[in-house]
Amino acid sequence: MPTISEKGKLIPASPIRKLTPYADLAKAKGIKVFHLNIGQPDIETPEVMLNAVKNIDFKVWAYTPSQGYTSYREKLATYYNNLGYNINASHILVTDGGSEALTIAMLTCFNPGDEVIIPEPFYANYSSFACLADVEVVPILSTIDTGFALPDIGEFERLINTKTKGIVICNPNNPTGYLYSKQELLALKALCLKYDLYLISDEAYREFCYDGNEFISPMHFEGIDEHVILIDTVSKRYSACGARLGCLITKNQGVLEAGLKFAQARLSPPAVAQIAAEAALDTPKSYFEKVVREYTGRRNLLVDGLNKIPGVYCPTPGGAFYVLAQLPIDDADKFCQWILESFSYEDKTVMMAPATGFYSDAMAGKQQVRLAYVLRQEDLTEALKCLEKGLAEYPGRTIC
Amino acid sequence: MPTISEKGKLIPASPIRKLTPYADLAKAKGIKVFHLNIGQPDIETPEVMLNAVKNIDFKVWAYTPSQGYTSYREKLATYYNNLGYNINASHILVTDGGSEALTIAMLTCFNPGDEVIIPEPFYANYSSFACLADVEVVPILSTIDTGFALPDIGEFERLINTKTKGIVICNPNNPTGYLYSKQELLALKALCLKYDLYLISDEAYREFCYDGNEFISPMHFEGIDEHVILIDTVSKRYSACGARLGCLITKNQGVLEAGLKFAQARLSPPAVAQIAAEAALDTPKSYFEKVVREYTGRRNLLVDGLNKIPGVYCPTPGGAFYVLAQLPIDDADKFCQWILESFSYEDKTVMMAPATGFYSDAMAGKQQVRLAYVLRQEDLTEALKCLEKGLAEYPGRTIC
Repeated sequence: MPTISEKGKLIPASPIRKLTPYADLAKAKGIKVFHLNIGQPDIETPEVMLNAVKNIDFKVWAYTPSQGYTSYREKLATYYNNLGYNINASHILVTDGGSEALTIAMLTCFNPGDEVIIPEPFYANYSSFACLADVEVVPILSTIDTGFALPDIGEFERLINTKTKGIVICNPNNPTGYLYSKQELLALKALCLKYDLYLISDEAYREFCYDGNEFISPMHFEGIDEHVILIDTVSKRYSACGARLGCLITKNQGVLEAGLKFAQARLSPPAVAQIAAEAALDTPKSYFEKVVREYTGRRNLLVDGLNKIPGVYCPTPGGAFYVLAQLPIDDADKFCQWILESFSYEDKTVMMAPATGFYSDAMAGKQQVRLAYVLRQEDLTEALKCLEKGLAEYPGRTIC
Repeated sequence: MPTISEKGKLIPASPIRKLTPYADLAKAKGIKVFHLNIGQPDIETPEVMLNAVKNIDFKVWAYTPSQGYTSYREKLATYYNNLGYNINASHILVTDGGSEALTIAMLTCFNPGDEVIIPEPFYANYSSFACLADVEVVPILSTIDTGFALPDIGEFERLINTKTKGIVICNPNNPTGYLYSKQELLALKALCLKYDLYLISDEAYREFCYDGNEFISPMHFEGIDEHVILIDTVSKRYSACGARLGCLITKNQGVLEAGLKFAQARLSPPAVAQIAAEAALDTPKSYFEKVVREYTGRRNLLVDGLNKIPGVYCPTPGGAFYVLAQLPIDDADKFCQWILESFSYEDKTVMMAPATGFYSDAMAGKQQVRLAYVLRQEDLTEALKCLEKGLAEYPGRTIC
């Protein structure tokens, strides 16, 4: 019997999915489960986007160009230029979600054995994309007491060696919600120039910045064109995770040319998603204003509610729709399983993502969970109540 | 300035796309270009599939399960069981096109440095997927004088060593159109069992078998469950190349589990395509009968027409919608460029794929081109006329 590959063994399983059977069992017992575990927003996809799907008028569902439809890339370029990015359609490679953009970036920029520094906690699948490209992730710890701000640049410099080839950031951050400041990004710019590193900037949550804070991208800076790889997706912007449409943007011609070859190998990004995403670029500003208002309200409710629970600490993040909270528990994996498997309050419970999945260090994040505020405020209030009651009952509680 | 990766240099560029600028120039001069170069059918996508797109009724375009919707996988299993495959939904991993299914298969089954034997000429992107997984493709030559039948099993055995881990076949074949016989497939089965090899069977063109020939799959055979990885796609079956939906099917649990981890890393296959493909499974039999009738007529017209041109030889393939023809020319790459760049007949010319892109040996296929019969018979007749006149005028003609 033939054996599977080493990579097939090494590539990590989704940490959240391990909990799914327990959630299913709870539901089978008639318990309502509040899903705060996954970044699947309940926000409706813009009508203009869904209408474009309903109004398709082709007779043959044909391949599109490997780099994406020209009309879509041109309109996308305008969207980015309105943000001040100063790009054109030729800098855009349309991809099968942000996931493929990250995979192509890793394969194109890094050789096997190269090291890439990523502030942790970080989005768990970064490890998977790095595994695909045989790249080693070197984590640098951001801590809850600073609200997960960028670690000191001196810390980065201590990790840099001849194998270091890039830095990946997610801004606003998943899983912490942290919004990087201009100062932090300028420090990263200087670092990348000094050590000749790629700066891969995952901006999936760009539209979700709160409290009037301005979103700053490395694309706003001059003198770093050859270094910056922008990763984007329509998943969160338009609440269209199932469209599977993202893009890689760079002014580095070598990366664009090699990236296109990887894109040609898989022929084409999805056609209907591109038609829909092109239409979605006409989403009225009022849609985003309403969504940001809604998320701000949810964030405030969730952060306030968490900090009122004895022993819980949660900083107030500036963006995305996640918070990372510190709980008075022995082990986040055990607690997240226990609250699904052995607990309910008024026939309700809550599913959360143990933060261990976002840290490379097995000990870090053992007392932290990520909560996605992708539910209505009424549900968040009930979920908070479940969490409070669960923490009070949990046998592995550390602070009594 | 940071450098790109070795893999970014090594991954092959699409050989056909090199010709695109010449086709564009011809069109700019007012010349009509018959596109026989790419497997983009002109056949209309089934109405039931397009209607499913138009009738979507969700409000949130959400992620689907990483392995695909359960309802789609269950209905797909029924489709395959009607072909005699004896599988269930748990054996199916829904992918972003056949391309991703092949990539996941390579990454899951093979380690870097492993060898995989592929009868050549073969689909050019197999080299790209192998490059992604750092697998070495070991070609085995099938020849035009046998109509590109499977090479003798003794030839395979001479290539097998300790690094050999699998065989990839495309059946019916792209680029040759060859339909493998039951005897050939049974010989491959015995070989894979004897040497403990994976047998990756790409069946993208399964629905296109002509002259009443029965389609046989390794999935029909017993005793080889752990070895067979089936690759499929809706691209050709439903003329829906732009849906980007395929699947990997196997009964090998190790491959399924590792494959799922790769699928989890990219979160989800596209949602709308799955809804449409599920509906497409209700495509009436009459649709396929009509398509097969149409392709049979085109194939006959094209093969007859080619064989009537002096110095040209083209075997009659049993499936798919490609033929590989031998031309009286010095160099297929030069000829395919010349006929676009320097020739026209009554303001028309033809774009073909030089067969060199389908052979690993730079010399093999130098006198061969692939023609996809994806145009109406009237257009094929005109394209044949252009080819005949072009061959008569071509300065690099080898037989006068």
